[in-house]
Amino acid sequence: MHFKTIAIIGRYQDTGLDAPLRKLAGMLQAEGCKVLLEADTARNTDITEHTIASYDEIGQQADLAIVMGGDGTMLGAARQLAYSNIALIGINHGRLGFITDIPLHSATDALNSVIHGNYNAEERVLLEGRIVRNDETLYSGLALNDVVLNRAGRGGMIEVRVEFDGAFMYSQRADGLIVATPTGSTAYSLSANGPIVHPKLAAFLLVPVAPQTLSNRPIVLPDSGTLSLTITALGRVESGASVHFDMQTWSECQPGDRIDVRRAQHTVRFIHPTGYSFFSTLRQKLSWNHMPQVSDETE
Amino acid sequence: MHFKTIAIIGRYQDTGLDAPLRKLAGMLQAEGCKVLLEADTARNTDITEHTIASYDEIGQQADLAIVMGGDGTMLGAARQLAYSNIALIGINHGRLGFITDIPLHSATDALNSVIHGNYNAEERVLLEGRIVRNDETLYSGLALNDVVLNRAGRGGMIEVRVEFDGAFMYSQRADGLIVATPTGSTAYSLSANGPIVHPKLAAFLLVPVAPQTLSNRPIVLPDSGTLSLTITALGRVESGASVHFDMQTWSECQPGDRIDVRRAQHTVRFIHPTGYSFFSTLRQKLSWNHMPQVSDETE
Amino acid sequence: MHFKTIAIIGRYQDTGLDAPLRKLAGMLQAEGCKVLLEADTARNTDITEHTIASYDEIGQQADLAIVMGGDGTMLGAARQLAYSNIALIGINHGRLGFITDIPLHSATDALNSVIHGNYNAEERVLLEGRIVRNDETLYSGLALNDVVLNRAGRGGMIEVRVEFDGAFMYSQRADGLIVATPTGSTAYSLSANGPIVHPKLAAFLLVPVAPQTLSNRPIVLPDSGTLSLTITALGRVESGASVHFDMQTWSECQPGDRIDVRRAQHTVRFIHPTGYSFFSTLRQKLSWNHMPQVSDETE
Amino acid sequence: MHFKTIAIIGRYQDTGLDAPLRKLAGMLQAEGCKVLLEADTARNTDITEHTIASYDEIGQQADLAIVMGGDGTMLGAARQLAYSNIALIGINHGRLGFITDIPLHSATDALNSVIHGNYNAEERVLLEGRIVRNDETLYSGLALNDVVLNRAGRGGMIEVRVEFDGAFMYSQRADGLIVATPTGSTAYSLSANGPIVHPKLAAFLLVPVAPQTLSNRPIVLPDSGTLSLTITALGRVESGASVHFDMQTWSECQPGDRIDVRRAQHTVRFIHPTGYSFFSTLRQKLSWNHMPQVSDETE
Repeated sequence: MHFKTIAIIGRYQDTGLDAPLRKLAGMLQAEGCKVLLEADTARNTDITEHTIASYDEIGQQADLAIVMGGDGTMLGAARQLAYSNIALIGINHGRLGFITDIPLHSATDALNSVIHGNYNAEERVLLEGRIVRNDETLYSGLALNDVVLNRAGRGGMIEVRVEFDGAFMYSQRADGLIVATPTGSTAYSLSANGPIVHPKLAAFLLVPVAPQTLSNRPIVLPDSGTLSLTITALGRVESGASVHFDMQTWSECQPGDRIDVRRAQHTVRFIHPTGYSFFSTLRQKLSWNHMPQVSDETE
Repeated sequence: MHFKTIAIIGRYQDTGLDAPLRKLAGMLQAEGCKVLLEADTARNTDITEHTIASYDEIGQQADLAIVMGGDGTMLGAARQLAYSNIALIGINHGRLGFITDIPLHSATDALNSVIHGNYNAEERVLLEGRIVRNDETLYSGLALNDVVLNRAGRGGMIEVRVEFDGAFMYSQRADGLIVATPTGSTAYSLSANGPIVHPKLAAFLLVPVAPQTLSNRPIVLPDSGTLSLTITALGRVESGASVHFDMQTWSECQPGDRIDVRRAQHTVRFIHPTGYSFFSTLRQKLSWNHMPQVSDETE
Repeated sequence: MHFKTIAIIGRYQDTGLDAPLRKLAGMLQAEGCKVLLEADTARNTDITEHTIASYDEIGQQADLAIVMGGDGTMLGAARQLAYSNIALIGINHGRLGFITDIPLHSATDALNSVIHGNYNAEERVLLEGRIVRNDETLYSGLALNDVVLNRAGRGGMIEVRVEFDGAFMYSQRADGLIVATPTGSTAYSLSANGPIVHPKLAAFLLVPVAPQTLSNRPIVLPDSGTLSLTITALGRVESGASVHFDMQTWSECQPGDRIDVRRAQHTVRFIHPTGYSFFSTLRQKLSWNHMPQVSDETE
Repeated sequence: MHFKTIAIIGRYQDTGLDAPLRKLAGMLQAEGCKVLLEADTARNTDITEHTIASYDEIGQQADLAIVMGGDGTMLGAARQLAYSNIALIGINHGRLGFITDIPLHSATDALNSVIHGNYNAEERVLLEGRIVRNDETLYSGLALNDVVLNRAGRGGMIEVRVEFDGAFMYSQRADGLIVATPTGSTAYSLSANGPIVHPKLAAFLLVPVAPQTLSNRPIVLPDSGTLSLTITALGRVESGASVHFDMQTWSECQPGDRIDVRRAQHTVRFIHPTGYSFFSTLRQKLSWNHMPQVSDETE
């Protein structure tokens, strides 16, 4: 067996996961794998026949974690398990996600095939962000998609000075600034007009949201460097600024704070069934087959 | 009957139109309408039982022209019939178009309902463009969608000085400049990042294609004025420039030529079955229901 | 004299306005105008030789208000004086603004010329927005630039159903939605990729900020209709939503609330010295002369 | 001396280069360098006191080529010298370019410093494009900025199927498709809404021009793969398609032709005076200091 101890993690809010989860776990056990059920997932379902484990225990004991939910569930699991060497595979029971690319109805078959070796593995980079005030780190966090600095509240804008490895890039007034990984290039960054970045590229994306300088453009940078975002002003005294690490938020930023973003030491290892195609996911998620399109004068 | 003499115009390249066209024409005749079949359409099908008419005869005799094809077929028919007062209605047997919004399979029922008065009419503005060299008009044409000035050929760019009612707006190097009606705002202009303009607005759109000035933006202008585009330079001596009136092209432009674009005197009257919704067409054509979208962290 | 009673309003935070303001007021008085000094402006300076007046008194007594500051100062004054018939003229002592287009150093000369009749007047539309919950209006406000609905706080997004005169347009997840006047088309909306709309057009702009639907586009609509934005979901339960009327904020929105935006009954009348050009302001503010531009292969 | 044999190449159309070129060449000779003057440059000026050399001879004999002109001149020189190991340095006597970053007035001092070792070198990748019909290569060319496929002529569009290392990416109707290097990311690609890519990244950019699919976005790909663009249809039978390698054009494309683009074996080595900053050039060229910007409500 390619994976001996396998954890199952379900989306917290999901109901109706009991039956498919039982079926999947049963198959894995029948194939000789040890199954760990994440503690909150166990509580949320009524499944009692498998070993219950915390994220820490999963990280220490399991080779593979199966994440059932959407891309958000995967983001949370990836962050929790970032310090372990566990592989991750995503099952989606709604619309397929970018990183949860197996439909629920074929999950048992797909996983059966995967544990017998029919898979591809790929490493995805994580970002590590630190909020620094007077040379003191106030908070640090990991992100698989993006670290986002934005105004916290009541309108106005944020003014940020951006440096890359200490070299001044630009100052910008905007709603916010997104630092994204290739994985995150198909998430929030894409809404803000960022490009799609292939997951194999060792690159960061820096994308402003609603920048006041009209000639500003998204920039793709080598992920070997450190981006520093220093808040130089806020549109309104009372508004404050926040930093988001995927969905985790730190809201206590004030002018003068610096956010340092670099590649994290650990990576995430995603498992895909053999035949997975990044471009196929893109086409499906972005409806490129369907071709939403302009009036065609040639017809 | 709300329309007494009705012309039918089919897309030139279409095969297989005979049966539905016969059915539609038969229904119209049975309801007491006189049917005219456009000459090329008659040649392209084998239908001989109806009066054959040229575009000129259609313009003089018919109250309504039914256009079967795509948006391109409608553009051609609208230009041909612009100087008459005829109303137009569009039937599409492929993907629905922005201005051919009745599906072929329901065409007979829809038209039956329309000729009994269940319709809305709307006026759409046409553009009139003139190419002027040394105060002499070299060419003039009409467009329902857009007048487009671009480099004709082998790469390079075009440099254009833009004036509105004689007031200097800007000079720009670009692949081209689009002047679009609200109707044209969902055609080529939309590909070039132009906004959608509601058909009821008395407005033009000025949209650059690949502008070198990064702070250039599409501009919406009152359609009571005249836009003048003067070619001040071409990227390469040999490249030339073209002006496109919808799908009609005039390719003889040279530096110094001025293209004057204004609202044409005549408008086009579109007929829609009662219940037609501009926004519904938008949603369908642009897949807004389907929501091609970014990775959703909340799932 | 074309304006008999003239009010002067200065930016609250400005220091150093005393001398130019004294000079301007002195000139006006010498020319036979009555000068009113807005109360906060008087407090902020040490000028005591002119009649001090509240905004209400200014609205009732003055023909013209001279606003010294930036575009933000003008936005505030315009809202305060919206219910009067007073004309407004803007003086900027920093970078020129879109609606404060007279430089401070030439203010006295420019105003002298204006009060002798050398000016153009133009009407600008205001938006009126209402926040409605269970058929009850919770708040209403005016805006010269824009009414903006966005998530109030900690990340996540907002999901909004948009209707125009009761007809469903689309549902969208985004950071926010901007409804802008032509005046506002060169403000926040422009940062969010909205087009520039000529001030003479009777139009609204609807522009999403970071929309999740990638085929969404800005839409220009007739300003005779009502846009209704209904909050159907928030990305995170705790996040809330805000509505901004220019710089005024109402932060108590919750799912189910509807924001109705229509043209306000009153307009604002701007005065420009003869020779003012909207396009010239655009060129200057957006650096179109300077041509920030891409690498030019033809050089 | 860090560079012993130095060639000087001037822009063909330039007049008035004699004096500065003489001064520069004199300094180099005085410092003990051998100077080669490119043949066309020699003809274009009246300088006869230095050895005249063809591009081939320059490639074989010189360590460094000084290119005086604009970015276009540098593109031409880089392609001509791509198969040699010569280093390139660019002098601009108009607006500074992205790759001609030394102003003419300080050229002699800057070069004096460079030849004494005060410089940084960086490798820039070239693209190699091949036009393939029925497995036969019809044309191949090199590009430092971009390989661009577009419709050749009279309007209409081009339909292209895109594959990366044999995997289907998407089919797209557009005006054209740009494949750009990081160097080219600040040229034509930037006009077409492509992101800026740092020159150190081993990446290609794929950017559509006016794509009909509204959810299409620029994509950044590893430069270790091959992009294949197959022309599947043209908007009009008569229109044809062209491929541009920087400024070199091949116009004979027809439906069915495939354009393969990969990283060329050779790279270009640029020399910059110590202190050169990529970001500084960006700020200057894109006017990020000047901040062309929207109406600022906070002022």
